[in-house]
Parts: sequence; C-alpha cells; structure tokens
Amino acid sequence: MCGIVGYIGGKAAAPILVEGLKKLEYRGYDSAGVAVMESGKIEVRKAKGKLAVLEGRLSCCNFGAQIGIGHTRWATHGKPSDENSHPHQDCQGDFAVVHNGIIENFQSLKEDLIAKGRTFKSETDTEVLAHLVETFYEGDLEAAVHKVVAAIEGSYAMAFLCRHEPEKIVAVRKDSPLVVGLGDGEYFLASDIPAILAHTRRTFILNDGEMAVLTAEGAVIKTAESGEVIAKEVFEVKWDAVAAEKGGYDHFMIKEIYEQPKALRDTIKGRFNEDGVNLDEIGIDKELLTKANKVVIVACGTAYHAGLVGKYVIENLARIPVEVDIASEFRYRNPLINKKTLVIVVSQSGETADTLAALREAQSKGAKVLAVTNVVGSTIAREADSVLYTWAGPEIAVASTKAYTTQLAAMITVALALAQCQCALPCSEIKAIAESLKAIPGQVETVLAQADKVKEISEQIKGWDDVFFIGRSIDYAVALEGSLKLKEISYIHAEAYAAGELKHGTLALITDNIPVIALATQEQVLDKTVSNIQEVKARDAYVIAVAQEGNKEIGKFAEHVLTIPRTHAALTPILAVVPLQMLAYYTAVARECDVDKPRNLAKSVTVE
Amino acid sequence: MCGIVGYIGGKAAAPILVEGLKKLEYRGYDSAGVAVMESGKIEVRKAKGKLAVLEGRLSCCNFGAQIGIGHTRWATHGKPSDENSHPHQDCQGDFAVVHNGIIENFQSLKEDLIAKGRTFKSETDTEVLAHLVETFYEGDLEAAVHKVVAAIEGSYAMAFLCRHEPEKIVAVRKDSPLVVGLGDGEYFLASDIPAILAHTRRTFILNDGEMAVLTAEGAVIKTAESGEVIAKEVFEVKWDAVAAEKGGYDHFMIKEIYEQPKALRDTIKGRFNEDGVNLDEIGIDKELLTKANKVVIVACGTAYHAGLVGKYVIENLARIPVEVDIASEFRYRNPLINKKTLVIVVSQSGETADTLAALREAQSKGAKVLAVTNVVGSTIAREADSVLYTWAGPEIAVASTKAYTTQLAAMITVALALAQCQCALPCSEIKAIAESLKAIPGQVETVLAQADKVKEISEQIKGWDDVFFIGRSIDYAVALEGSLKLKEISYIHAEAYAAGELKHGTLALITDNIPVIALATQEQVLDKTVSNIQEVKARDAYVIAVAQEGNKEIGKFAEHVLTIPRTHAALTPILAVVPLQMLAYYTAVARECDVDKPRNLAKSVTVE
Repeated sequence: MCGIVGYIGGKAAAPILVEGLKKLEYRGYDSAGVAVMESGKIEVRKAKGKLAVLEGRLSCCNFGAQIGIGHTRWATHGKPSDENSHPHQDCQGDFAVVHNGIIENFQSLKEDLIAKGRTFKSETDTEVLAHLVETFYEGDLEAAVHKVVAAIEGSYAMAFLCRHEPEKIVAVRKDSPLVVGLGDGEYFLASDIPAILAHTRRTFILNDGEMAVLTAEGAVIKTAESGEVIAKEVFEVKWDAVAAEKGGYDHFMIKEIYEQPKALRDTIKGRFNEDGVNLDEIGIDKELLTKANKVVIVACGTAYHAGLVGKYVIENLARIPVEVDIASEFRYRNPLINKKTLVIVVSQSGETADTLAALREAQSKGAKVLAVTNVVGSTIAREADSVLYTWAGPEIAVASTKAYTTQLAAMITVALALAQCQCALPCSEIKAIAESLKAIPGQVETVLAQADKVKEISEQIKGWDDVFFIGRSIDYAVALEGSLKLKEISYIHAEAYAAGELKHGTLALITDNIPVIALATQEQVLDKTVSNIQEVKARDAYVIAVAQEGNKEIGKFAEHVLTIPRTHAALTPILAVVPLQMLAYYTAVARECDVDKPRNLAKSVTVE
Repeated sequence: MCGIVGYIGGKAAAPILVEGLKKLEYRGYDSAGVAVMESGKIEVRKAKGKLAVLEGRLSCCNFGAQIGIGHTRWATHGKPSDENSHPHQDCQGDFAVVHNGIIENFQSLKEDLIAKGRTFKSETDTEVLAHLVETFYEGDLEAAVHKVVAAIEGSYAMAFLCRHEPEKIVAVRKDSPLVVGLGDGEYFLASDIPAILAHTRRTFILNDGEMAVLTAEGAVIKTAESGEVIAKEVFEVKWDAVAAEKGGYDHFMIKEIYEQPKALRDTIKGRFNEDGVNLDEIGIDKELLTKANKVVIVACGTAYHAGLVGKYVIENLARIPVEVDIASEFRYRNPLINKKTLVIVVSQSGETADTLAALREAQSKGAKVLAVTNVVGSTIAREADSVLYTWAGPEIAVASTKAYTTQLAAMITVALALAQCQCALPCSEIKAIAESLKAIPGQVETVLAQADKVKEISEQIKGWDDVFFIGRSIDYAVALEGSLKLKEISYIHAEAYAAGELKHGTLALITDNIPVIALATQEQVLDKTVSNIQEVKARDAYVIAVAQEGNKEIGKFAEHVLTIPRTHAALTPILAVVPLQMLAYYTAVARECDVDKPRNLAKSVTVE
C-alpha cells in the first residue's frame, strides 16, 4: 500500500519527510517522492525504486523548505516509474498532491480535463486530483478541495500543497487511513502512525469525511464536504514502534486477515455494472474471453489453491473445461495447449519463478495468458497478455491471507466474464452473483467476529502434531488452503483430503481425539459430507465443522461449528477460509511460533 | 486366482475335493466345480457362487467315486457363470479338465476345433483343452496330454480325467503352481499347499514342464513333453496352515508384492504383436480409440494414483489431453464430458461404489467408458462399454500392490493403443516401448532383490510419525502412491508433494533427520529434483532416493539410494513403486501393525 507523510514546522521538511517514509518501508513500495514549498515555488523530486534513489536526487538540492508532503507508492494504476510516482502536479506546477487509494471515476474525469486542455504526464488516477484542484481553485485551497471531494468517487487519503497558500497543507480521507501528529510548534501528517512516532505520540485520527488543515499555527479538523470545524480529541499513541508498524496487531498476518474486507472491496470495486461484468474495467481481452474453449490455471502454493477454486467456479458458471496445474510441473510437461486456450497464471508477487516460466511456456505455444497478480509492474504483469489485478495491498506476512481471498474474488470475476462473453449464464444470474459478491466483504466481517471461538478451538488443536482437513467439491479446495496455512505457520502436519477419499486409505490415521476440520458449506453434497464426518466420528476424531448459517444438522456430529453467512455456492470459499486462517494463526501463536516469518520459507519464491 | 484339487485313493473323493477347495477360499473365487469318476462315467457338478452352492448340488448325489478333480474359478475369459465354471468337458463327456492360467492361443485353437465340428458350451479358454485332449486321444491319456502341451501357448496348471482310463489323473504345469500330496495309499493334487495339509505334509513340488501321473498305486513325475520319468525328491512341508495360505510369506501383502512379476507378465501377455498393440486382443472399441479427443480418468485411492500415471503417459505418448478425477468428486460435479470423451474408470474390485456411480454419470452424458479392472464379471466390467482387464489375480491384502502395478501396465497399453489409432507415434516407437514393457516383469525381480536394503532403511523410518515423499512429473504420481502405502499400513502420516511445491509451504515441516523419500527417476527434470533434495538436505532431512541405475549424482545428496533398472521414462513407475511398497511393508512390520488388515479400512469400498 502507498504511504503518505507531511510536515509543517520550524525545521527543514525534506529530511523529515524521507525519514518518515523510511518508517513505512516495511509496507512495500516501488517508488517515492516529495514536494516541498521552496522559495514560493513547489519543488518535486521523485524516483522509481528505493528511497535511497530519492535521497540521491534530494542530496544536491539543499532545500530549506519547512513545509512539504511525501509519498511511497505501491503501483495500482500505471506501472512503477518516475512519472507515475507521487506527488503529482497540475500543468502549471501550482499544486502538488499525494494520494492513497483508488479514484474510481478517474477515467471520465481525465477525459473531461483533457477536453479542457489539461495535459497528463502519468498513467495514474491520482493525477486527476492535481488538475481538478487547479480547475476548482479560486483563491481558497480548502474550498477547492471540497469541490474535488464532491467530484470524485472511490477511496482516498490525500494531501495537497498550493503555491498560492505556501504555509498550508490540506488533507482529507475516505476509506484510507490518515493521522495528524501534534508536535511542539510543528505538525505532521501520515497514513500510518510509525511515520510520526519519532516526533510525537499525540495525534488526531481522521475519520471518513474529515479534512485536516495544517499550518505552522496548528492543525484544525473540519468536514471534508463543507469545512465545518470538528472538535477532535487527541489520541495518545501507546504502541511502540514495532506494534505501530502492525497497526496495533501482534503480527502482520492477523492484521492482514483483518484487512480482508477492505482488500476485497477494493478488488471488486468498479468491476461490475448494469451489464454484469464491466468488461472495459477489468481489462481482459474480450476476444480471448469469447473464444476460449479451454482454460488452464497455473500457479504455486496458495495461489494454486485459488486456482482450484477457479476451476470449480469457471466450470460451473461458464461451462468451459478447466485444468489446474502446479507451475513447477506445468513448465516441464510439454503441456497440451494452443491459441484457443486461455492460460491464467496466479501470483501475488508477480515474480514467482516457476509461474513466470509457465507463462512463457504457454505463450511459446501460442496461448494467451491472463495474469492475476497483486503487484502492478511486476514481471508477470508486464509479460502477460492481460492482467487482472488483486487490490490486496502489500502482504508482509509470509503466509498469504488477503492475497488469497482477493485471488478468489478475481477468479469469480473471470468466471463471470467468461460466462457473460460466452452467454453461458443469463444476465440476471450474473448480476445476482455479482450482488452476492459485493456483499462478501461485509460477510467476512461477520466471520472475523468469531475470533474468540476460533481462539478457544486453537487451544484444542495446539497440542497435536497431525491434523486433517476434509471437504467435498469446492470445499476440498478450501480444505487444502486451510491445511497449508496451519502447516506453514504452526508446523503441525496438516493434510487435506477430498472427503470421499478418506476410506481409500487415510482413515487408517484417524485415532482418538485427533482433530479433523470438516468443511461442509456445499448444499448439494452436504449429506455425503455428513456421512464422511460420521466416518471419522466413529473413529473418535475431534470434529470442527465449518458450515453455513442455519445448518442444524451439522452440530450433532461436530464438537464445534464455525458458521459463515449464506451466499452463492461459488462464493463460499472466500468466507470459509477466514476461520481457517484465524485457526492457523491462533494455533501458531499458542505454539509460540514465529508467525510472520515461518522457518524455511520466503515470501516471494523467485527461484525455482 | 483359481484353485485346483485332485484326489485318488480309498475314500469318497467328492467330500475331500470340496474340503480341499474350502482351504483355498481365502484366495477369492466366483464359482466352483468337481468332476468324479462315478461308475465308469464322469460326473460333473459345478455352480456359480460360493462353495455352499456346489455342496448343495452334490448333497443329493451320494457319489461313491474315489477319484476326482475340483476347481475354484476366478473369472478371466468369460464372466462368472455355471457354464464357465470348471471342470470343462469335451462333446461326449469322455474327458474332464480343470485349469489355472491362460491359454494365449485359445482363439485360433477354438476356431479349428469348431471347424472340426466341436461344440463349445462356455466362453472360457479352458474348454479348448477338453476338446483338444479328446481330439488327440488314441487310447493313451498321457500321450494325448503330451500333444495338448505341444499345441498350446500360455501358462497353466491343469489336470485331466478320462473315462477310458478311470483310475488315473494326469496333470501338468507351466508358470502356474501345482503340487502332489503323498498320502498313505492315497494321492492328492493341488495348486496350493493349504488344500492338502489336512492329509499329508509329504509332497512333490512340480516344476515347469513336469507332468504328474496319479493312480491308486502312486504318483509318478515325468516330463510333460515326452513322458520320461523324473526322479523327484519328496518335499516335507513344515509350514502351519496359516503360513501355507500365505505361500510361506508372513503376510499376503508381501506375497502379493512378490507376485508382481507374474501378474505383470499375465497382464502384458498377448496384448502386443508385430503391429504394436494387438487391438483385437485388448478389446477396446477401435472407433473410440480413434475418435477420442479428450480422456477423463476416474478412480479412488490407489487406482486414482494409477490414473495420475495414466495422465502422464497418455498425454506424452498419445498427445490427447487427460483429466484425472477422484470418483467421489467427479460424480457430483456435473462434469464437462461428451461423446468424444473417452472416460476410463479404474477399480481393482470392479465394485467401488463411487467409481461405479462415476461410470453411470459419464454414460448418461453420452461418453463411452473403458473399465480397467481386475475382476471379470464385476458390476463395473459389466456396465462399461469396453473392459481392459488386469490379470493380477485376487488381491487379499487391503493395501493394493500387484493390482496397482498391473493397472499401470494397463494404462500404458491404453496410451499406446491411442497413440497407434491416432498416429501420434511412429510404429517403431510403439514397438520399442512395448519391448521395454515386456522387459519390466524381469526388472521388477531385480528391484525385489533389494529387500534387505529396504528392510535396513525401514529401521530408520519406523520411529517417525511423519514422513514426506517428493517427486516431479511422473515421479510425483509414484510419490503419492508410496505415501499412501506407508500411511495405510504403518499409520505413519506420510504425505507426498510435487517437489517444486515444497518451498511454497511444506518446507516449514522439514526438521532434523525427518525422512524424505525422493523419487528421482526422470532424466528431464533430474537437475530440478536434485535441487529440491538439496533444499531438504539444507534443513537436515534424512533423504532416501529412488533413482535409475547409473545415476552417480544422487548418492552425494542422499543417505540411501534405491536403484531401479533403466527403462523408458513412461515405464519407471512400475519399477519405482516396488521399493516403496516394500518400505511400507517392512516399516509396518517393524511397527508391529496388522499389515494385511489395517485399522478402519476395507479391501473393496462398496459404499460411498
């Protein structure tokens, strides 16, 4: 995710801004920049790459400016490059803006602004903000920002500088965090607390729809819409620097688990409209979607498990045969694909070595490749024929959580897009599923609210070295992901089975009280899954079930039932995996494992 | 497998024959029969079903005959039925014969005999023996049998009665066991020692090409070809009845592991000729082989693992896309198949409930189904459109071994048949692979000779509760089967991974000295597999490798290397799985597990 900093006070701003950005480095970024008010003029320095590159560019400038804003960027709209880095400016360079989030209607705004003669230098959504504020400016930056807020749709935390009001920073937020740090005659702005902790612990935490106006005299919080002053309470930060990085959570993993509703909202946003799937927005070649007669999904690890869900949803919704393959297998198997095959590669980092090799192998055989990735400008994103981004933001914990659930949302989007282009489903059904998908982020929140129950179950599991997961149909794919999570971070040997396969061998391993986690969210195979639960119960297993709300049957056979809200059968994995992520997390914590950095594993596997 | 008994002496033969057959019941059978020499006439009673049915038919006869032969049948040529049961007779009923094994040239012999006016009552290969001996008979049964032996090809243990020589049984063997029991004024014949153990422990064990001539005066062993008398040593059986059932082995599983060379020879026999695959012999609809544009393999458990190998070999040799599915998943997923899809179901018993349901689901969607099964006349064999039998003989141990390797041989046969019908491979290459396949049974013997080394390794493994298997490409499929074997009978939680997937999660479970069994038989991914071995070595795993002879590299990274002889890449699984079967067996024995009847498992899963 992007990071924002701002400073106004009695010291040179540039070094303070860079130091602040460094505190946000852990969150991942691909470029950085600052804007300072130097001798009545806005000076912007920005650079693709590490902060050291930016520091190099600043070192020769010797700016004395005591006011400025800074940004680290994690690419969304537009690849990582100097031009796409923030701050962005209007044509005259009278304004500068930094922004986190996504401006959903930027495309139409941009067209209007171009029609009015504005020239765009970048591919970003953010640049419209600079041109907009310039358009609206009539001598009052705050008033202009009110108008910007009224014109835009989407999520944002943003901060503006204006050459005509050189001692002021104006910032607003909606659905993206922003805090003001209250120093001694100096004021700070930041998207995250770690950036200001070296200077002050006294803060204003902005809510949605609030605007901060920072001058050397003080920080005033107003409404973003109309500028009415809000009496804001000072929030005293008690976290240490490490806790602050984790937003108050004990580990990045649990922070990221809780970020899923937002990540999902961002990933779904704008991708559906009155026609069903917004094909212009998702950016997948329409001919590809229309002509594909076979889909091959290739990935590794957790992304492979997302691919397994993809098989179910694409086959069920679009009725196109899907093969899912492990990238390290696919690339060496001389796969049977051709130019009518849609190959989908899935990789959070966009740099997974085997997946990249698989992409190249597929292209060399004439297939078109759609990449589902979380990192704009990554190698896989650059080399793929189309890209469908997940907007999970940077994922820091090695065990993937929010990247996985957003990959699932992406898979459903692809399935619906294929169904739409190939007329496999009536429009009404596509829209109904899209509506259910939009409800999912809120439903994930409901699931997260069961944390205490999950924690209690983890106490039962923590003493075991072997645990089994079972499920049928799409639940089997979720079981695989649940078992991988537990394995990765708690070092429990967890293994998942298609529930019907148990009696063909694995049942031999079921002994007194051994935990079996049974996914039972699929109505059409519920009876069969219940039979399999009884098979393990008959061998005295300790059963933890995951089922849809209102399932009365399952409680009779399980020690615990974790419920998920009702939704379309194809969407249950996004909900059902959440308690499994939490279970892995709390079990690993109870076993005193290094949750965020499990032994032997790396976040992004860029070697074969 | 079929069972043979014979008696000549001073007591009523029929009850002795039935008692003898009962001792062979454990070996599995589907019908039974006896022939006795009653008042100068051969009386035959036979029946489909259990021995009790035969006993019922005999109970009203009160035969006093003191000479007779009996048989329990396990269907091969022709379904289980009264007609197909042994003994078989010629048109006049002057001769009776029982037979174990397969007469390979029975089809042409049968046509000749029909041309000469003989009428056949059954679908069996055995019936030709009765008509042949009648044709050749010129007043000397022994001489006629010499001529029969000269006329037939294949494997056999067989015994003849002749109305014109009412006090004689003539029996011969080739590639199928036969023993003579030496009593006090009475003589016994049996395919297996348990059948005679109640009467005597003094025996002649017949070798290939030997003939036994039994009269009330004694048992004489001669050459089958020309009747020269052989001085035979008496073999005193020291086994108890239970050990005798297992042919001297401690468990059925290890007996069946050692039966694999024979089972493979029987499964391959006659299926290849100068054209490559003998399409007439294998009995798969040629149109199906020519038109299939997609193959779907459906099975459970071990048979599913055979299907995974099937995918590799069919895709590689015939270049037709293959999907492999678990039967309990396939039947509920509304699979995407049509009449150009060749669906292959694999089931040892031919009665696996989920696999049968999958077969019906496939047929209901218009697909043609080829069954690969070990049991003639089983429900799956009856309902499938074509059947390719494995000739493994009855498998008694719950953990499948010889059924699996013969399924692999069947998969390769299908792959070559598809390649041949669709011209995907030059004829010379098909023949070369067929030649390699014919060498496999002998190569399995070489692998079996490493039992001591495997036993030693099992001592290292027996103390662990978690073991990992890794492999790439076709080796991954073998790794899955190896891990299932270990899991089923030793209760060690063994899990298999595609070697390239380790670093995407499972590597977290690798700790000091944990056993990792690495399959490394595939030349084209050998370097990559060696890299993966090094990954686990770096975490101090205890590596046991399975590699092809002459691989010098692998020994540097593994504690132990089990070698398999060199063969075609598609055939390595048949060799590579053998040390893994033995490893599972010896480890389970070392852990004092009930090898043949593991807890919670059944041999044939006829429920969902």
